Amino acid sequence: MATRNLLVAHGGGPTAVINASLAGVLREASRQKSVGRVFAARGGIEGVLKGDLMEIGGLGRRELELLKRTPSSAIGSCRYKVGEGDYEAIAKVLHSFGIGYFLYTGGNDSMDTCLKLAERAPDCLVAGVPKTIDNDLAGTDHSPGFGSAARYIAVSTAELCLDIRALNIQISVLEVMGRNAGWLAAAASLARSLDPGFPAMILAPERPFDEEAFLGEVQKRWKAGGGFVVVASEGLTDPTGTALGAEGGKESVDAFGHALPGGVALYLASLIRRRLGVRARSEKPGLLGRASRSLVSEVDLDEAELSGIESVRGLCEGQSGFMVGFKRVSSAPYQIAAARVDLHSVANVERKLPTAYITSDGMNVTPEFDTYCRPLIGADPLADYWLLRR
Amino acid sequence: MATRNLLVAHGGGPTAVINASLAGVLREASRQKSVGRVFAARGGIEGVLKGDLMEIGGLGRRELELLKRTPSSAIGSCRYKVGEGDYEAIAKVLHSFGIGYFLYTGGNDSMDTCLKLAERAPDCLVAGVPKTIDNDLAGTDHSPGFGSAARYIAVSTAELCLDIRALNIQISVLEVMGRNAGWLAAAASLARSLDPGFPAMILAPERPFDEEAFLGEVQKRWKAGGGFVVVASEGLTDPTGTALGAEGGKESVDAFGHALPGGVALYLASLIRRRLGVRARSEKPGLLGRASRSLVSEVDLDEAELSGIESVRGLCEGQSGFMVGFKRVSSAPYQIAAARVDLHSVANVERKLPTAYITSDGMNVTPEFDTYCRPLIGADPLADYWLLRR
Repeated sequence: MATRNLLVAHGGGPTAVINASLAGVLREASRQKSVGRVFAARGGIEGVLKGDLMEIGGLGRRELELLKRTPSSAIGSCRYKVGEGDYEAIAKVLHSFGIGYFLYTGGNDSMDTCLKLAERAPDCLVAGVPKTIDNDLAGTDHSPGFGSAARYIAVSTAELCLDIRALNIQISVLEVMGRNAGWLAAAASLARSLDPGFPAMILAPERPFDEEAFLGEVQKRWKAGGGFVVVASEGLTDPTGTALGAEGGKESVDAFGHALPGGVALYLASLIRRRLGVRARSEKPGLLGRASRSLVSEVDLDEAELSGIESVRGLCEGQSGFMVGFKRVSSAPYQIAAARVDLHSVANVERKLPTAYITSDGMNVTPEFDTYCRPLIGADPLADYWLLRR
Repeated sequence: MATRNLLVAHGGGPTAVINASLAGVLREASRQKSVGRVFAARGGIEGVLKGDLMEIGGLGRRELELLKRTPSSAIGSCRYKVGEGDYEAIAKVLHSFGIGYFLYTGGNDSMDTCLKLAERAPDCLVAGVPKTIDNDLAGTDHSPGFGSAARYIAVSTAELCLDIRALNIQISVLEVMGRNAGWLAAAASLARSLDPGFPAMILAPERPFDEEAFLGEVQKRWKAGGGFVVVASEGLTDPTGTALGAEGGKESVDAFGHALPGGVALYLASLIRRRLGVRARSEKPGLLGRASRSLVSEVDLDEAELSGIESVRGLCEGQSGFMVGFKRVSSAPYQIAAARVDLHSVANVERKLPTAYITSDGMNVTPEFDTYCRPLIGADPLADYWLLRR
């Protein structure tokens, strides 16, 4: 039986478990007789374009286990936007390395690249491996990377709430990644398992920011009980669609007219201080939230590996143009099934936080979201905190 | 034998292990025959002033173990600056509750309060329990709270470096707490155990910020190898002593003349973009770094508990006006001895990062600092990351 060489590449920002998907790919590739040599692209699709591939097969069991538990991308990634003219060049590189199986791990843009490549490199079978902390990929219940980032946000929010409540002299605004979808900001709601008031508000980008309603709610809560935490998605916009606190927004240009790097949390903390005269600060863990090993979700970790394994299986069965997705069989007990999803239904579709998951006032998420999200973050991370109740 | 009631209060910002000190106090108090009822002040010294005390004795072994491992202050704290006129009121409250032992867990300001109270409430024996993530208390090798915050910073820095290197399209500036002392920013150097280039620069507030030297170094490194991480203390100042990016600093006033909340990392990222045209972002975990349970240092946790235990022992032996400090017996193997330090040598002294721990260019820390700091963060948190070396 003729073998095909396999190439794996990463697209877009790394996650805490993208290496687990890679480990899954490498594990399964070594088990499949139809796989020949195994290559990884250095630095994502740019590496493919440059022919900068390295052989990565032959890792031992111990190495694969370490790789699985190391956050960020071990082989490098990029944000290069593949143009129409690039596909021919990519196909040439694939041909010259004898690549018959190509796996691309990434989000929306990467899945679009996968789809086009599947159509334009007919000698090569192509599949997508889902990866996004934003959880905005269509065709799947959730994506590898999200559960771990959600665990980080849930725990960080709970601990920030504990800190803020202990000192009780200020409000803190916690900025959470997710430019266009509020899934990750919503995950802060899981801190409610520690205390129903954790966090006080969650602002997702699916709802335009209503300044007066926000300030009214902040003032009411501050007067009632002092300090609390507001969770804000980095992608919040005002009703005109202008990003809050982002470059180019109001208050974001310095004395020389240069854009200041802003940030939603910074903006909201400033707004609270200015309009309400209440002390407010901001925290912005940023990239730390997608790179954490200690707060990785074991469920996410295993599913990331599974998506790598399943994608290799699909290719070896002769399929192309699919992404491995998850169907939820049940939330309690949590059970999923892997599925191969046609990339046509994935590419360039952005899956937002559904309306049913946002409270009617737009300033929190519903219990239905908690039911959806809870299993994804793994074993209860907020068990056994000691709270004084008197 | 007549018993004395014991009161414990927390001062200033919470840490990941201040509850461990509290657990130590409660454990030892229950063992000492001379201790009567045990009270905690709700919300720090303000709680004492208001007579807002709660009985907290009688916690079981399981509860104490949970309390020990819960970050933030379980009894609440405050930032109230005790005035000369307050001591009489405090003494009255202590008297009315029959308090003969008073323990105050805090940093520099709290130790000053302890000292004055020891002199002005002669019926009550008073001791300080050290607590600061800033590590700037005199009279001790290090303070409980620092080791865990240092572990958080070391791990977060390493993981941020992995993330930045994988995508390699930008520089990240990581802002670290510690307004006046660079101990915590310096702890980022422990990320070097993963890679000698992690992080590229560490800027402590003990050295005035030299803009041109900084930009020169950034440009050199960017040209040589792309993305990297700069760690900056929140307390950085320019050569005139003005805080970088702080309120009131340049570029920190909005169109209405209102102060914008700034931040050093934000300022430096903006500077890099503006002056060098290089993409730069910033992360500011802020309070998350002092509230993390998953990155707590087991060494710090046990030492925090020990400081609580030792302080009760000192009081019960009739001592007053001391703080429990640590003497380092040896770094390898790590060994410390608890000591009772006269509060006169602690109060109002700010212990800065020594010159020997800062490199001559002022943009990193020396290996001697790593030797000092390494044992404090506990078991190697950066073992077993899988790095591709080819």
